[in-house]
Amino acid sequence: MPRLAPVELAKSYRLLNHGPTVLVSSAHEGRSNVMAAAWAMPLDFDPPKVLVVVDKSTLTRQLMEASGEFVLNIPCKAQAAQVLAAGSQSGKEVDKFAASELSPLPACKVGAPLVAGCIAHLECKIISEPRNEQQYDLFIGEIIAAQADPDVFSNGHWHFDGHDDKRSLHYVAGGHFMVIGEEIDVSPSP
Amino acid sequence: MPRLAPVELAKSYRLLNHGPTVLVSSAHEGRSNVMAAAWAMPLDFDPPKVLVVVDKSTLTRQLMEASGEFVLNIPCKAQAAQVLAAGSQSGKEVDKFAASELSPLPACKVGAPLVAGCIAHLECKIISEPRNEQQYDLFIGEIIAAQADPDVFSNGHWHFDGHDDKRSLHYVAGGHFMVIGEEIDVSPSP
Repeated sequence: MPRLAPVELAKSYRLLNHGPTVLVSSAHEGRSNVMAAAWAMPLDFDPPKVLVVVDKSTLTRQLMEASGEFVLNIPCKAQAAQVLAAGSQSGKEVDKFAASELSPLPACKVGAPLVAGCIAHLECKIISEPRNEQQYDLFIGEIIAAQADPDVFSNGHWHFDGHDDKRSLHYVAGGHFMVIGEEIDVSPSP
Repeated sequence: MPRLAPVELAKSYRLLNHGPTVLVSSAHEGRSNVMAAAWAMPLDFDPPKVLVVVDKSTLTRQLMEASGEFVLNIPCKAQAAQVLAAGSQSGKEVDKFAASELSPLPACKVGAPLVAGCIAHLECKIISEPRNEQQYDLFIGEIIAAQADPDVFSNGHWHFDGHDDKRSLHYVAGGHFMVIGEEIDVSPSP
């Protein structure tokens, strides 16, 4: 079981700020699911909010709408095959956790599970915006709890050096990912 | 002047899919501006749409609202200092192109300029959604033209090997960026 550390909500946007691909987990009345999504990003700092696009055809959509909650999990390089599997099948047809060889863990504040082995988790409550949901498949969530793996995120910053298998994944298309690379610091102009 | 190649609209989402930080450029009645934004992502494939968050206090917001257009430019590692400069000052106070040492170039289909030296450009026309704009500072754009640097993007895929200075930037906070790293291909399960 990974050692996860809480991330203060004011800095939780930094988990998503660099644009990683996520796993969206959801649950309702004993049924749970996990799907991959490249289209997720921060929307606001305080209270912290996120955006995620979830198609109407998915089980995740059903579970999110029924429960009003979801978790954005940030998977890592070691999980690339599982992420692709979670993005290539439908939870309406298979148990996606089993089919993707991913394991659910209890979350802190929502009924949706965390996905084990991920490097960060953002537990979210949906802020209802029916027009966005219907017209654009776009959901807004308020982040109500966040955790990250202290090997790669602490004091509000990522630090992947020495943990290459825990680098975040950035999906392009067709089974093709990129992995986040080197860190660079730029001093602001005087 | 960089050699830019057109990107077919159906694959233009792939320019943003891996979550790079962007430069938003805009213009209206002879005034133009450029700002950095980490909060931009694809919203739809066909017609291709993007989301970007632009604060009410910015000149970019004024120019976008007045013109109904903007460009998302994808800057690269060689431009990190300029991106930070474009994200740290206000176009209401300084000429941001000059202050950031960035150069505007004419776009194909919009009045907003392209930012020279970037590895890709998405020219967008705003799809008006007043509630999102007012409540969340959130804008939806339809991509009406896209170009990319063929050194690093062709046939719908990024290929940064051998072009480290052209790798995309992924902002965290406080002048701290990450650069996109290695590519990995995962075969779908049989």
